[in-house]
Amino acid sequence: MLFRNNMRPYFGLGSSYFRTCVLLAMGPSMLGGSAVLADPLPSWNEGRVKQTIVEFVRTVTDKSSPQYILPEQRIATFDNDGTLWAEQPMYFQGFFALDRIKALATRHPEWRDRQPFKAILENDRKAILTSGEKGVVEVLMASHAGVTTKDFEVIVKEWLSTAKHPRFHRPFTDLVYQPMVELLAYLRENAFKTYIVSGGGVEFIRPWTEKVYGIPAECVVGSSIKMKFETGDGKPFLTRLPDIDFIDDGPGKPVGIQKFIGRRPIAAFGNSDGDLQMLQWTAAGEGSRLMLLVHHTDAEREWAYDRQSPIGRLDKALDEAKRRGWAVVDMKKDWNRVFPFQ
Amino acid sequence: MLFRNNMRPYFGLGSSYFRTCVLLAMGPSMLGGSAVLADPLPSWNEGRVKQTIVEFVRTVTDKSSPQYILPEQRIATFDNDGTLWAEQPMYFQGFFALDRIKALATRHPEWRDRQPFKAILENDRKAILTSGEKGVVEVLMASHAGVTTKDFEVIVKEWLSTAKHPRFHRPFTDLVYQPMVELLAYLRENAFKTYIVSGGGVEFIRPWTEKVYGIPAECVVGSSIKMKFETGDGKPFLTRLPDIDFIDDGPGKPVGIQKFIGRRPIAAFGNSDGDLQMLQWTAAGEGSRLMLLVHHTDAEREWAYDRQSPIGRLDKALDEAKRRGWAVVDMKKDWNRVFPFQ
Repeated sequence: MLFRNNMRPYFGLGSSYFRTCVLLAMGPSMLGGSAVLADPLPSWNEGRVKQTIVEFVRTVTDKSSPQYILPEQRIATFDNDGTLWAEQPMYFQGFFALDRIKALATRHPEWRDRQPFKAILENDRKAILTSGEKGVVEVLMASHAGVTTKDFEVIVKEWLSTAKHPRFHRPFTDLVYQPMVELLAYLRENAFKTYIVSGGGVEFIRPWTEKVYGIPAECVVGSSIKMKFETGDGKPFLTRLPDIDFIDDGPGKPVGIQKFIGRRPIAAFGNSDGDLQMLQWTAAGEGSRLMLLVHHTDAEREWAYDRQSPIGRLDKALDEAKRRGWAVVDMKKDWNRVFPFQ
Repeated sequence: MLFRNNMRPYFGLGSSYFRTCVLLAMGPSMLGGSAVLADPLPSWNEGRVKQTIVEFVRTVTDKSSPQYILPEQRIATFDNDGTLWAEQPMYFQGFFALDRIKALATRHPEWRDRQPFKAILENDRKAILTSGEKGVVEVLMASHAGVTTKDFEVIVKEWLSTAKHPRFHRPFTDLVYQPMVELLAYLRENAFKTYIVSGGGVEFIRPWTEKVYGIPAECVVGSSIKMKFETGDGKPFLTRLPDIDFIDDGPGKPVGIQKFIGRRPIAAFGNSDGDLQMLQWTAAGEGSRLMLLVHHTDAEREWAYDRQSPIGRLDKALDEAKRRGWAVVDMKKDWNRVFPFQ
């Protein structure tokens, strides 16, 4: 447990966090008459962003507050890449796709002479990058479709248990942001339902979010390819088809939220222009709202990038956040820890 | 509270229902030494179907059972039309569509001379029926698209608060099956997550399921039309487009389950051939499973129909249920009450 000076917001009557704290405080630490409360966000430095989060939660969970929001309406949506885990030097699903192409190459001798597969098999980065959107879609379909949903889940889990990030030489699921993991837990303690709303493939994300973030499969919204129900050997299965079903990015995020959740969030968390519409949609609801952007400012512990980055570009959304007073995390300043292993 | 003779299954150690009952029984009814337990399914007559349900729940919630299933895996999916509420003499969403066309007619003078709108405005049932699938889609789009998601929710709620069922002269939401409402609550008490997986339009169902079934909007899977994120007067909104997005019926149900929930159910409930693949998909999972069909056998209290009915046809699924030993509710025999008002 950590002592903190600025505990005032935690004492909001009626919040379930307050009740949790009371229970925690009823142990030996009550001796001497001063309550000792665990800081639910220890990896967040004291400052305006942390204060904004805590104050928002206090307000919407305080039954005596005019801003009180019923538990069932406490929907919080989180982007994944760059918001909950890292996304450099390439979206992690990209590493998965390239590894998958290599693993499948023996079954596809024709790939040796066909771009962009040839470039991938020869680790020719420049040629991969010149393959354009058409190439990306081809690689995506070859690496993600043509298997059953059950097999795909196994493939993703196996890859995650062996693949390593090129800079940190650790499993990709180690590269989650400790402050955001704490934030997810803190919101759930306060009866929020936490959702991932990601541009990434939903079936690439679902197999590991329960363990890593405490978010069950059914609370993951993402991009998808089509599926078909089939029967073979008297058993039903779902085949993943090489055909895009839904792109959950940019203006697709509010659509995904409405399709899958059917309620407007009261809090939304992102890090790039692809999250702008989700934050706008959240902000346009009635009552107290929290919109937050993670700004990657720490080249030493993580990466520093924003307006010019081809991955996770943060430009328009940063301007709008400043204009509208949305919370912007300065990773270097606001987080005393980035990854759990640091 | 009701006394029941066959209470043995309720005493499964470790089930949360057992714990709930213990708490209930710790009141004055403990006097005299005999525990009095509330029957969680009072509208179900004692018999094989009720026993199957209770035994299934006991088994999967009993930590000492080899068939024990973790709470997060206790996903139960329910068809809506004909399984949770009535569907005769026409799907209730059909009544909504017809009423909506009539309400919009003043804005569409051209409908007076155009089928199938002309037939609807003139209450010409025969002509409506001859309009075929093309006509149905036209009516669906005219009545369901072209508005924002927010406005559509208001329209559905207003309709439900005024429209009456032609036979029972009551709001359509009164025509829910009391035994199924009890079953939903019983499963949730045992840490199941209850979902609707309906061929009906998801945004027609979501506005009222929390109140009527205790199922929140985010636990409703259904058919959908496309949506578009737009901005006007500086405010974002989602427009419902006249374009089908997803048909959650027949082989679409397992696809919808995988898309929206991402886990295979351990229990599935339906009443027609449109639910067959959902039940097959559920049955094909490992471990203890419950598959149940509601067979409409009570023309007096509700309706009697199965193999020949154009609405809610139950033919292939009935054969498969018999062959595979799935539970089949004989509405007349198994339910002592059909609707809450009876």
